Amino acid sequence: MTISYDLDAAIRKVPDFPKKGILFFDITGILEKPEAFGYCIDALCEKYKDRGIDKIACIEARGFIFGAPLALKMNVPMVLVRKKGKLPGKTHEKTFELEYGSDTICIQDVDIKVGDNFLLLDDLVATGGTLSAACSIIEENGATVEAIAGIIGLPFLGYQKVLDPHEVDVLVSYEGE
Amino acid sequence: MTISYDLDAAIRKVPDFPKKGILFFDITGILEKPEAFGYCIDALCEKYKDRGIDKIACIEARGFIFGAPLALKMNVPMVLVRKKGKLPGKTHEKTFELEYGSDTICIQDVDIKVGDNFLLLDDLVATGGTLSAACSIIEENGATVEAIAGIIGLPFLGYQKVLDPHEVDVLVSYEGE
Repeated sequence: MTISYDLDAAIRKVPDFPKKGILFFDITGILEKPEAFGYCIDALCEKYKDRGIDKIACIEARGFIFGAPLALKMNVPMVLVRKKGKLPGKTHEKTFELEYGSDTICIQDVDIKVGDNFLLLDDLVATGGTLSAACSIIEENGATVEAIAGIIGLPFLGYQKVLDPHEVDVLVSYEGE
Repeated sequence: MTISYDLDAAIRKVPDFPKKGILFFDITGILEKPEAFGYCIDALCEKYKDRGIDKIACIEARGFIFGAPLALKMNVPMVLVRKKGKLPGKTHEKTFELEYGSDTICIQDVDIKVGDNFLLLDDLVATGGTLSAACSIIEENGATVEAIAGIIGLPFLGYQKVLDPHEVDVLVSYEGE
């Protein structure tokens, strides 16, 4: 296992994406370097391997990139959290407010059993809105969220308050201007 | 490595999704079973490990699920193929026709170097339209597509003709009615 890695050096900072005034933290620089990508998965596995995680729920679409290898390495099921209309069969859904408008995310009914202990994962933890909605779906259906994990955290956007009292861990954090 | 696995038993068949008359092959049943998911990655790795693959390009969003662990296991970069507007920085793009309307996919410029030999991956190979557009982007920029891989193939939808002369391999195939 790689014990430490300069992830910041692998993350490209793209100004004015997806719109003017936003500095975008681009994880594709991590995916270009297998040692950087492998470090992320190793570090997350090391952190959560003894926490009794039953399932890893991953937020569409970049959360899938980190959630898939982590679920395999931890030998637990991978659960998809997707936008409405993307998952077949019966789903639990939750609508939440965005800066402009709202969004709805879904998890398949069969993926949440009473007593399941989830790790919830996305690539970037920013305002925490989507992750909070995913927590609600999981907890309203009798399961628990052991922790919330991301590769990149932007704490200045206030995610910890939104996600309290859940533990939120990220591998690298950036401050606002 | 798991030598064989009854993947068909893990794939849920959902009628009338995403619209009436379509039988949807749901790979989330694979993700629920780490041994099924692990088999997919092992089988793809075994098939391509000696083929000189430099990079694995994965189609958004379910292609990411299989592409991420495969890229890590093969120790090569993972390249994202996404809808227009989702990738920051300079991108190559290609618009292609759908049954109704058209769609545009993109790959970041930095991800394609002259001479790169790509494995192109999605979860499901159906009409081949998106995969064909991705091949075009890769090949028009001086790189090659060694093979195209999927977990599930629906050959009755005609993908092989669309993707010729590329090699297309899937782990399980279904026939139409």
